[in-house]
Amino acid sequence: MRERKNGQYAFGVDIGGTSVKLGLFDIEGILLEKWEIPTVTANGGEAILPDTARSIQTKMQERGLSEEDLAGIGIGAPGAIDDEGTLVVGAVNLGWGAFSIPQAMREYFSVPVKAANDANAAAFGEMWQGGGKGCRNMVAVTLGTGVGGGIIVNGQIVTGASGAGGEIGHIHIEDHEMESCNCKNKGCLEQYASATGIVRLAKRRLEKDGAPSMLRGGALSAKAVFDAVKQKDPVAEEIAIQFGDYLGKGLAVVAGVVNPEIFVIGGGVSKAGEILFDYIRPPYEKYVFEPCRSAEFTLATLGNDAGIYGAAGLILRG
Amino acid sequence: MRERKNGQYAFGVDIGGTSVKLGLFDIEGILLEKWEIPTVTANGGEAILPDTARSIQTKMQERGLSEEDLAGIGIGAPGAIDDEGTLVVGAVNLGWGAFSIPQAMREYFSVPVKAANDANAAAFGEMWQGGGKGCRNMVAVTLGTGVGGGIIVNGQIVTGASGAGGEIGHIHIEDHEMESCNCKNKGCLEQYASATGIVRLAKRRLEKDGAPSMLRGGALSAKAVFDAVKQKDPVAEEIAIQFGDYLGKGLAVVAGVVNPEIFVIGGGVSKAGEILFDYIRPPYEKYVFEPCRSAEFTLATLGNDAGIYGAAGLILRG
Repeated sequence: MRERKNGQYAFGVDIGGTSVKLGLFDIEGILLEKWEIPTVTANGGEAILPDTARSIQTKMQERGLSEEDLAGIGIGAPGAIDDEGTLVVGAVNLGWGAFSIPQAMREYFSVPVKAANDANAAAFGEMWQGGGKGCRNMVAVTLGTGVGGGIIVNGQIVTGASGAGGEIGHIHIEDHEMESCNCKNKGCLEQYASATGIVRLAKRRLEKDGAPSMLRGGALSAKAVFDAVKQKDPVAEEIAIQFGDYLGKGLAVVAGVVNPEIFVIGGGVSKAGEILFDYIRPPYEKYVFEPCRSAEFTLATLGNDAGIYGAAGLILRG
Repeated sequence: MRERKNGQYAFGVDIGGTSVKLGLFDIEGILLEKWEIPTVTANGGEAILPDTARSIQTKMQERGLSEEDLAGIGIGAPGAIDDEGTLVVGAVNLGWGAFSIPQAMREYFSVPVKAANDANAAAFGEMWQGGGKGCRNMVAVTLGTGVGGGIIVNGQIVTGASGAGGEIGHIHIEDHEMESCNCKNKGCLEQYASATGIVRLAKRRLEKDGAPSMLRGGALSAKAVFDAVKQKDPVAEEIAIQFGDYLGKGLAVVAGVVNPEIFVIGGGVSKAGEILFDYIRPPYEKYVFEPCRSAEFTLATLGNDAGIYGAAGLILRG
């Protein structure tokens, strides 16, 4: 019989609006296996945690793992989650109200359970095993449908007083915006630097005049814009400059607050690659306080797995 | 003979360009005595630490204290100082280059020595024994000649990767500024929200048209502006609104990054009192991400002693 030390494994769980991602990690932070189950949001999302628990129990049986083999279970979920793992206000897209996630999981497991906001967990994952590996002061930026953020100071997630630490998508960056952001404010960074924000900038630019562009006629998307940038389409380049100016300025402000050593850029928009930095870095350097100018910019490397890495990291490294 | 436990006292030192402030604290954080010595900046400021050490030794003799009675010595100084107490670049107004402050003090004392940036130390002092007492997530804002800041996350100072954490005076807030800030950028928060910034706003407003105001003719100062505001001078109120819009917007951005429970406002401008909040709070609430809206605003209570409190706090609470 193989000898096995206690607490050599951890599960990392990333609860999203359509699927729950799960990963089994060893104590070195190696992802041994990952899988997904659907998120059932009906009835206030009451099935989500039981489904998750059952999926973990099934995997433990498959692998012959007992609770003694587990260091714990880490969970990332949308919404403001405080340092104790309590969902402070609720998570609209899961149907959840406010409650303590670790406490709810105690019905199924007696191992330690920790929970964090999903964007913060992803940031923590990138610091632990991704683009920011080895760094202790990091800002993760997720350029997806929205703009998410996660701030790591001295190796710890900045949760904030009400779980809204690192919500850099909603910092005010433009005084003259007429459209409202999802948060109801006007002029949030997310309105220009997210995938939908880039489409907004593109539409406005294309409507401004009749300048020829390969973006005309086709379906507008952040990908289409950066594909056209790579082909030196001048209108697409203008859009990228505008995007970069907003994001570079926003990150310069973030740097003035927490002075990170590195920005790790992820999310769907980051698939455009390092060309993004050609547009973000010059305005960043223009607007930032000089001692923060040397911060590195790098791409996130864990992709959609950042959340499960970070959730497991809450247990194995937190 | 009175019995005395070891390590019951700490010295807090705040090194400024004209004077070194010193305080003796007991282990409960009570300031027992404070005094000052002049800062001799000649010859690269080589006398500053020896003078400080001698002043502490003299006080120890006076009080019959030995090194065994000391928990340590905390020091705040201008410039970027990292978590190890190293002055990273140097401090121009002391004449100092880069060096490790704790290491330099080891020539005089064998007790623990810690050092931090003076604005960060002052913020820490306000959290420990001042306006932010009991809070663990705080932003201190010093509205003086410049705008200084100190960020406390989970009870710890945010030093940042290059010691520039909390330098919120230099976050970019205005795209259309023509004058340069001391940092050489244009449109920094400090250019509008410091004492000199308020004078800048006042001059510009008074030059704009001939509207009658009690500010005309007299010497312009931040104090004069807020004295006039208290007397309902309409031009002064316009200036205060502009000041509040810049500062409220800037602090809203800071909140989007670190989500503090409280802002503690100090420095010369804060002598105007709580009337400041009438001008800061409405724009703050307008621009801030909703979950951060309930942050408290309060005045700093330690005044010029915040630095020595915070320096001692590095030892007694850090």
